[in-house]
Amino acid sequence: MATVNIERIERDITAISQFGFNEEDRGVYRQGFSAADMEARAWLREQFEALGMTHEVDGAGNVMGRYGPADRPAIIIASHIDSVPAGGIFDGVLGVIAGLEVVRTMQDNGIVPDFPVEVIATAEEEGRFGGMLGAQALTGHLTLDWLERAADERGNRLADAMSAVGLDYHKALHAYRRPETIKAFLELHVEQGPVLDAEKTTIGIVEGISGVFKWNCRLIGKADHAGTAPMDMRADALMGMVDFAHEIPRIIEEEGTERSRITIGHVECKPGFPHTVPGEVDFTIVGRDLDEEAMRMLSNSCRRVLSSIARRHKLKFEYEEMSWLSPAYCDKDLMNLIETKTKELGYSYKIMPSGAGHDVQFFCGYTKAAMFFVPSVGGISHAPDEWTHWSDCERGAQLLYECVTDLACG
Amino acid sequence: MATVNIERIERDITAISQFGFNEEDRGVYRQGFSAADMEARAWLREQFEALGMTHEVDGAGNVMGRYGPADRPAIIIASHIDSVPAGGIFDGVLGVIAGLEVVRTMQDNGIVPDFPVEVIATAEEEGRFGGMLGAQALTGHLTLDWLERAADERGNRLADAMSAVGLDYHKALHAYRRPETIKAFLELHVEQGPVLDAEKTTIGIVEGISGVFKWNCRLIGKADHAGTAPMDMRADALMGMVDFAHEIPRIIEEEGTERSRITIGHVECKPGFPHTVPGEVDFTIVGRDLDEEAMRMLSNSCRRVLSSIARRHKLKFEYEEMSWLSPAYCDKDLMNLIETKTKELGYSYKIMPSGAGHDVQFFCGYTKAAMFFVPSVGGISHAPDEWTHWSDCERGAQLLYECVTDLACG
Repeated sequence: MATVNIERIERDITAISQFGFNEEDRGVYRQGFSAADMEARAWLREQFEALGMTHEVDGAGNVMGRYGPADRPAIIIASHIDSVPAGGIFDGVLGVIAGLEVVRTMQDNGIVPDFPVEVIATAEEEGRFGGMLGAQALTGHLTLDWLERAADERGNRLADAMSAVGLDYHKALHAYRRPETIKAFLELHVEQGPVLDAEKTTIGIVEGISGVFKWNCRLIGKADHAGTAPMDMRADALMGMVDFAHEIPRIIEEEGTERSRITIGHVECKPGFPHTVPGEVDFTIVGRDLDEEAMRMLSNSCRRVLSSIARRHKLKFEYEEMSWLSPAYCDKDLMNLIETKTKELGYSYKIMPSGAGHDVQFFCGYTKAAMFFVPSVGGISHAPDEWTHWSDCERGAQLLYECVTDLACG
Repeated sequence: MATVNIERIERDITAISQFGFNEEDRGVYRQGFSAADMEARAWLREQFEALGMTHEVDGAGNVMGRYGPADRPAIIIASHIDSVPAGGIFDGVLGVIAGLEVVRTMQDNGIVPDFPVEVIATAEEEGRFGGMLGAQALTGHLTLDWLERAADERGNRLADAMSAVGLDYHKALHAYRRPETIKAFLELHVEQGPVLDAEKTTIGIVEGISGVFKWNCRLIGKADHAGTAPMDMRADALMGMVDFAHEIPRIIEEEGTERSRITIGHVECKPGFPHTVPGEVDFTIVGRDLDEEAMRMLSNSCRRVLSSIARRHKLKFEYEEMSWLSPAYCDKDLMNLIETKTKELGYSYKIMPSGAGHDVQFFCGYTKAAMFFVPSVGGISHAPDEWTHWSDCERGAQLLYECVTDLACG
């Protein structure tokens, strides 16, 4: 049986981790279109070259290497090699390096695929500029207007960041990949959550990417002196937020599913002084579910509960829905293939949603696309402590190899 | 019957409001030892001079005017004329101007008191430098160490601020006033709360100043991706704070009194991103009651509830008690005098605690001291919209006159 080589995988992940590595916090700083990101992309092209693969960079900055015939639809193995600031070494990188290893293992075993195997490192997946540029470009989810307005948190424009590394943002619109050129799309990624590690399960077969809505909320009451205002004469905005947040578990029990998530990540009291009753509180609500109807039920319930609590506390309630992203579902046939191969390899697995966004979500519905996870130790990700055991990386790559050869050969 | 003249009171309050008045937000900026504050103090000495009162500034910056014999213990009428930034025109000022009017009314009616009537505008009551400098100095609640360390929010030292206006902070320790030089201490102030206005009551006879404790609290959990971390696998620090805050009404019902206040005025989630489960939350708790035993019960209950919630949410709970100020009680005889005079004047009244701190609290227990309130419209204070109806100012000054003449004559 052909087996992937974990030593090569470890060597390559370690090699790529040096681009943007910060000795101080041991984090990776390889934000999209940074110098470190571009160096990593150049390094990747050298690897493609060394394997005799054809390779190119498209107008969005996606780096693509191809092994196999030029004229047939490809089996795409994709993930990303950019990182968040102070990120870990596996996020995205594992999926790309596993793709390299799949090609190497095919070559080692004298396998020439009937359909080309294409390894893609997508550009700017981590959303520095508010999107997933590479995957959006490939699947036609880009507009000129968005390209011209996209900017990072500090106001640096995407167009300028691309120009600084020799890319013309207009060309990103040329990166569109006609769906008939793709036979299947597969992404291997670390889970970035605690489920597989906690349940001692090796493979998470992703059934879809949860949809997400984000609200900016505001409750407005009356700022008062914390000493002179009796409890029953206050319009304390924070206590309104508190009463709402306290209802979140009930809202999920009544209206949601076991995949529902509601998170309040940001809260700001105004004026925010210890001796002043908060006259206003701004906070965010982020809701997720794999079922769009459940998302609707959750958001309706949040609105009703907040409205009624605002009345009870003599507050004014305002909210703005900043975004509503529908769930994306993975291809059933590909999921079945992954499940079959996982069973053949004897790995434990579970079928689960992805709560985080991934490149694959733009390919769902556009082509046959699927994804699977390997465990993140302690669920940690987007942090220097991110870790995935090498043996799990090996199993993920082996499973990827089995799926890709099945799809690419015959 | 001798009556105070509201036109003179209005004229003087309006005159003093011009020092530090900001045309833009219509707020008063007369922070302690600012140029505007010093101009107002000079203006006040001119008024004392015009009434033939002896007057002086002590080492702490307290401005004092005396009417009557020099060798007997004084009836002190005191409040302050410094303001918070963007403050209103009545806070503190009413009590000082009413003192002037009491002297004028005595003079108008040919009354020469047996005991001197002393009007004091205390220095730096609003706590720009973290204390109530003038009242602390007069009552011996000052240390050289505190004087040398006190600084405002921007790091400006009290010692430098005093030096800039020609005062030597060492001399503040000379301002101590031996208690045998004081027969009684009276303060008239606007309520700065909503109770009198809401209950259509004219006079609030203060039974004491609530004690107050302030805690800085921290709950530490685990920051997680808001999509990948299932609800039951989180250690969400904010949800711990929320569960605690939700128990505040119960804690007060079970352990407190109708005068208890517990306020969370400041909350900060870390990292504070909408898509991240808060791994840490810092917040303040300020508790108040007029009964120190009730304060202890409340603080014990807060600690127990927070500890048990921390366990339930898998959080670590830390807190620091930043301050514990005991309640201060007004003199019963003076309260009885105020109540008798209020009834004689036919004004409605209620006996109530002061939730805010005032100069009087340093005189309680040190000499016979008492305080009464007139209504603040809508409870608004420390803001340009602060208002007290002139007719309530008139009644407050009339009541002060009755009390002072009773104490000062025979």
